[in-house]
Amino acid sequence: MEIEYVMPDQIENRSFEILTEELKNMGVILSGDTAPVIKRCIHTSADFDYANTLKFSKDAVKILKELFRKKTLIITDTNMALAGINKKKLAKYGIEARCFMADEDVAEEAKERQITRASVSMEKAMRMSDQIIFVVGNAPTALITLNEAYRSGKYKPAFIIGVPVGFVNVEAAKELILESDIPYIVNRGRKGGSNIAAAICNAVLNME
Amino acid sequence: MEIEYVMPDQIENRSFEILTEELKNMGVILSGDTAPVIKRCIHTSADFDYANTLKFSKDAVKILKELFRKKTLIITDTNMALAGINKKKLAKYGIEARCFMADEDVAEEAKERQITRASVSMEKAMRMSDQIIFVVGNAPTALITLNEAYRSGKYKPAFIIGVPVGFVNVEAAKELILESDIPYIVNRGRKGGSNIAAAICNAVLNME
Repeated sequence: MEIEYVMPDQIENRSFEILTEELKNMGVILSGDTAPVIKRCIHTSADFDYANTLKFSKDAVKILKELFRKKTLIITDTNMALAGINKKKLAKYGIEARCFMADEDVAEEAKERQITRASVSMEKAMRMSDQIIFVVGNAPTALITLNEAYRSGKYKPAFIIGVPVGFVNVEAAKELILESDIPYIVNRGRKGGSNIAAAICNAVLNME
Repeated sequence: MEIEYVMPDQIENRSFEILTEELKNMGVILSGDTAPVIKRCIHTSADFDYANTLKFSKDAVKILKELFRKKTLIITDTNMALAGINKKKLAKYGIEARCFMADEDVAEEAKERQITRASVSMEKAMRMSDQIIFVVGNAPTALITLNEAYRSGKYKPAFIIGVPVGFVNVEAAKELILESDIPYIVNRGRKGGSNIAAAICNAVLNME
């Protein structure tokens, strides 16, 4: 295999060209405002499954853009997802993004109540604001907690990016959100991750 | 789909049981010290491809464990990978982990020389120490730079975790490392990512 010289500022464009071409060869032509989101997930993972499994509620991208414009607080369920979100874009919008997973009080409460830190983190966030974009790239229990709060009428998330990854309750937790009328971007099935969660945020943050 | 209650401290074990069972059903039985590394990559991504594509140089896990024991500096090519490495384990070993990708001097030099920030970061690291574990989860150009330094006789990386993801030069850059005699863990093909890079570190850091 040969190394091809590509100018640093052209690598991303070249990647998107290649993956768009390959999608076309698979018979997949993406259009509309979901296309850049799906393509960025494929770009981040080199996994073309996202073309089939990434699900958007009605007007999801439009709603998410509007929430970004309103400087809506972002809460993530991992510090990795937080690290992956484009800081320059956040600063440009004036958006705050936070993660409580490493907080001592969260760890203590989780241990005491025998629930996950992700669940406690979501509860902590819900007490802070009624306008939050939840970005879940790891813990299905975060989605379960948000869903319970919503079903009981206590809280409605402004938006959920629901892409936890794994083997225990991951698929079922995502179905809960898919069946709700919370605005969402969810990856159906087991796949996802903090990188995918950040990629979805960045795809929409890039849309100005 | 039903939500199954699993005690928080059992979720990881249960995940590994499920994925081990599924590997077995695919006819894949992993053994030896590479098994926990491969399984953690699958756990992190829900992608069973890693069972076939993750490649280890001779005694790679043993060598990496020894380097951790010697408190060898870790340099990553993304802040996401850095965020994903278990900080408690690093503290326990007394290992420093750093990423230069967001450094101003790196950005300036990259722009001036028309090379990637990842390449400049690797050069900056190589000037710092001759004992470094390089953790590359994003940029193939990081691997290309390390390979050039090695081939020209200027520098030998102590270890490379080479799992960049993507479409431009990713496969070719990994082959360069696979053909070298640098100790490595490399994921052949396009897949990988910062999450996989961190997962590999954590799998080996967990092996005490």
